[in-house]
Amino acid sequence: MNATLPSQVEQCERTGRIDNFRRAAGKTEKEFQGRYYNDSDVYKLMEALALARHPRATALLDALIPEIAAAQSPDGYINTHFAVDKAAERFTNLKDMHEMYCGGHLIQAGVAHHRATGRTDLLDVGQRFADHLLSLFGPGKREGMCGHQEIELALVALSRETGKTEYLDLAKHFIDTRGRGLIGGSAYHQDHVPFRELTEPAGHAVRMLYYCMGAADVFAETGDVSLMWTLTGLWDEMAGNRMYLTGGLGSRHSGESFGAAYELPNETAYAESCAAVANVMWSHRMLQLTRDAKYAEVMERALFNGALAGISLDGTKYFYVNPLADFAGEHRRQAWFDCACCPPNIARLLASIPDYLASESDDALWLHTYADSTVPFSHGAVEQRTGYPWSGDVELRVLADGEFSLQLRIPEWAEPQLKVNGKEYLAEPGRYAEVHRVWSRGDEVSLSLGMRARLVESHPYVQENIGKVALMRGPLVYCFEGADNPADLRDIVLPDNASFTGLRNSLDVIALRGHAGVVLAGDALYRESSRAARPSAAEVIAIPYFAWANREPGQMAVWMRKG
Amino acid sequence: MNATLPSQVEQCERTGRIDNFRRAAGKTEKEFQGRYYNDSDVYKLMEALALARHPRATALLDALIPEIAAAQSPDGYINTHFAVDKAAERFTNLKDMHEMYCGGHLIQAGVAHHRATGRTDLLDVGQRFADHLLSLFGPGKREGMCGHQEIELALVALSRETGKTEYLDLAKHFIDTRGRGLIGGSAYHQDHVPFRELTEPAGHAVRMLYYCMGAADVFAETGDVSLMWTLTGLWDEMAGNRMYLTGGLGSRHSGESFGAAYELPNETAYAESCAAVANVMWSHRMLQLTRDAKYAEVMERALFNGALAGISLDGTKYFYVNPLADFAGEHRRQAWFDCACCPPNIARLLASIPDYLASESDDALWLHTYADSTVPFSHGAVEQRTGYPWSGDVELRVLADGEFSLQLRIPEWAEPQLKVNGKEYLAEPGRYAEVHRVWSRGDEVSLSLGMRARLVESHPYVQENIGKVALMRGPLVYCFEGADNPADLRDIVLPDNASFTGLRNSLDVIALRGHAGVVLAGDALYRESSRAARPSAAEVIAIPYFAWANREPGQMAVWMRKG
Repeated sequence: MNATLPSQVEQCERTGRIDNFRRAAGKTEKEFQGRYYNDSDVYKLMEALALARHPRATALLDALIPEIAAAQSPDGYINTHFAVDKAAERFTNLKDMHEMYCGGHLIQAGVAHHRATGRTDLLDVGQRFADHLLSLFGPGKREGMCGHQEIELALVALSRETGKTEYLDLAKHFIDTRGRGLIGGSAYHQDHVPFRELTEPAGHAVRMLYYCMGAADVFAETGDVSLMWTLTGLWDEMAGNRMYLTGGLGSRHSGESFGAAYELPNETAYAESCAAVANVMWSHRMLQLTRDAKYAEVMERALFNGALAGISLDGTKYFYVNPLADFAGEHRRQAWFDCACCPPNIARLLASIPDYLASESDDALWLHTYADSTVPFSHGAVEQRTGYPWSGDVELRVLADGEFSLQLRIPEWAEPQLKVNGKEYLAEPGRYAEVHRVWSRGDEVSLSLGMRARLVESHPYVQENIGKVALMRGPLVYCFEGADNPADLRDIVLPDNASFTGLRNSLDVIALRGHAGVVLAGDALYRESSRAARPSAAEVIAIPYFAWANREPGQMAVWMRKG
Repeated sequence: MNATLPSQVEQCERTGRIDNFRRAAGKTEKEFQGRYYNDSDVYKLMEALALARHPRATALLDALIPEIAAAQSPDGYINTHFAVDKAAERFTNLKDMHEMYCGGHLIQAGVAHHRATGRTDLLDVGQRFADHLLSLFGPGKREGMCGHQEIELALVALSRETGKTEYLDLAKHFIDTRGRGLIGGSAYHQDHVPFRELTEPAGHAVRMLYYCMGAADVFAETGDVSLMWTLTGLWDEMAGNRMYLTGGLGSRHSGESFGAAYELPNETAYAESCAAVANVMWSHRMLQLTRDAKYAEVMERALFNGALAGISLDGTKYFYVNPLADFAGEHRRQAWFDCACCPPNIARLLASIPDYLASESDDALWLHTYADSTVPFSHGAVEQRTGYPWSGDVELRVLADGEFSLQLRIPEWAEPQLKVNGKEYLAEPGRYAEVHRVWSRGDEVSLSLGMRARLVESHPYVQENIGKVALMRGPLVYCFEGADNPADLRDIVLPDNASFTGLRNSLDVIALRGHAGVVLAGDALYRESSRAARPSAAEVIAIPYFAWANREPGQMAVWMRKG
């Protein structure tokens, strides 16, 4: 985060995103620069700066807040694209113009800032925008909603932060009235059927996921089970037949959208970084609502793989699109984009990682994933010592007294051993292992998850993965890169019994080395089927998917031929 | 053809395509109907009617010719979209408006009619249009060429038919000056690089192929080897890494275009019927120029599979797009299209099949594929008795005396036995078997190709075909349909040693019956790789790909899991 946050502030300045606010405030005569939704990048970055809770980030944020505040109209409206000459066009095109979407990110930044500092200067800007919305939209007022969901979850967060239920009501209203063609009726905008009639994720992936996040938040506040019924069905469809191994979502470049069930092409995957980020966030919400370990499994998968791949190891370059194969060797991260939704989205995710580690219920502390850290909770804290995800060994020291449960998530891939003060406890893969007892400060919990490389395969309906395997170790998906391997990746065949050894490499990640075969392909496009040619033996090396494209350009593949 | 040709004339009448000519001739006040390139459908159909050489077709054509002729302007221009109110816009948008493309099909129809009947009434219309082009385009005149190639090959045909070399010169000029951005510079239009610098087929597939047909025809007349050098390279790239097993071409819906090397997705294949038709035509030209059996192999492949699938068994419904898998079971033939290029293209191909069977060189008759027929040539004729492609046995009776060669193509898949008057001759797969002798009327040649079902596999770089096999028998590609099979086609696994028996079915084709396994897929999208579950045994049935979708809607797949 040391490199990421300052460099993103610089990019926002360089590309006129901050000047747009100055222009709206009358401080400069410059033209509006960039895309009409660019305010949202600044807001997401401000949310990341607030979440970081770091003096340098705070200083950067403190400089930005007055620039934003000065750009707000007296009536609470704020959007720099519709400032100055375009003021008359405000809210004239809800479907396309992202005004509430931008405002939603403003509200999220304000809430994060308030939580981190107790200050209300940024929250107030967001709240004035929300009050402006309340004056215009809602039952008996103007119909319609934003073409890109985001305001819904932001209004719930604002309602929670301020105690004002009108914001929640408006969020609920936007969800309840969507899907009836008020903004054109397209599946791209999820305006084709009402939320409660959705049976599969459809349309623009990020919109779909933000929609679900908003609905989950409304359910959390209202207990409206018709929302939760739909949410669990949609999530199962997503994770059950439309999700890349990496947690990436959105199979199609066309419309940045979900595809059909099992439509998961590798080279042409879209898998926008923002969609993986949203997968983490939505799955986290589902986990909070249900404490079902399946949500934690996917949250962790998307976090460590699909989302983390979106940013370079040096923290300054980004993927927008995240294919699972690149045989041309041309896909590279960029320092910024005209449409720069992904960089600050990754930044705010990384800045909020502590929020994903654990949560608390009445009588338990739930540990969802593991990291070297101290996790505070109402009884005190739990200290974690672990090299996770490189190592599967987690040593916990309980810094609390009293009767409560520790709920330790056991990943589906684990071969767990759990001991409390040396005494063995039951732990099963894919569930939370509960340790309920009267704890004394200094009690020691030792969890060994068993971190071994394993080959995974896809459901056979995924057409591009038939006859292929992928390599995983713990929660990490691995990939093969040209830089490490002796042949065109398409000529490498992993045997069924392939075994791999971990070793730290020059990228400071644990690479996996193993034996494989290389089969030269020959020229014929089609030929009579025969027993495969005898492969020549070769040593191959895989690295974590998130670390790919950090060396010279070259091929990459997650799914490899088996046999 | 009995059903096809009359029904297409009816469709052209019903959709206003003929009325457009009447409107241009001042016979009706109706508005122009349909797309701006619809004249070409009528011309292609007229070519088919001429090629059919059948009294009923002749009658239909005789009724159409005066309608066309009356629509021509005194200066030779003819295009019904640019008649009446749009006359001022003629040739103002060469890139998009297909005026020369339509004219090219008019010329082809005229040439076919002249060859069939000796009459010049339709040829004259086409020649007047060509003369009009000569007055406008060519060296020192207006620059630019048609966005959709076709006029080039038509001008060569007209030059051959009339002996007037100016038409050939203009065809050559259009090819020589394309690729320099005169019509926008896009790869879609093959305007991105000059023809001789093309190293792979690119852009819109049908445009690309018509371009190559034109270049091949110019080479045939001029002997300009720089064209042939490019053509052989392009053809090898096409057949070597961009062609579906069926001979279908054009992997992408986007731009109806060629994809990258080995980009051959099955469900989302475009493989326009017109592109398979053009594959037959271009490969036929390459065969004529080289007598290399590889061109005949592809010509036959595209004819019996990719092209023939474009029309229903009853001859009245058509595919525009030809996927190699349809797991949703929704792809069905249509009676007509707004953009109806494919139906008459298939019609003219089927009407000209005799032209593809054989050709003659100075001292040899070359048989490229086999059919129950009598093939005339300069020494007399050869009578073929065969059930090809259902049977691999071909009995030839030579109805000629004298010294000459019979050159009999032996397909790559054949296990040939060749006898002349009972005496065995050498015959090798993938070559022409030459029998040179002094023939006497009544000499008998017996060729047995050995027709067995065989499993074929793809080059492993075709990502969607890894771990899969397809079934062929002779030149026919087979597919599996839901109607015949006991499980979701994606759950069926063909063993390496699968054997199939042929039997004629209710569609009057030879189906293949064999034993396979059914493996239920389970729910998990990803799971740890393991030895495959033991499949349950099942009987499966495949039918020729060209015959698919002639029963109730259901799944279809060419490539099946193996193992």
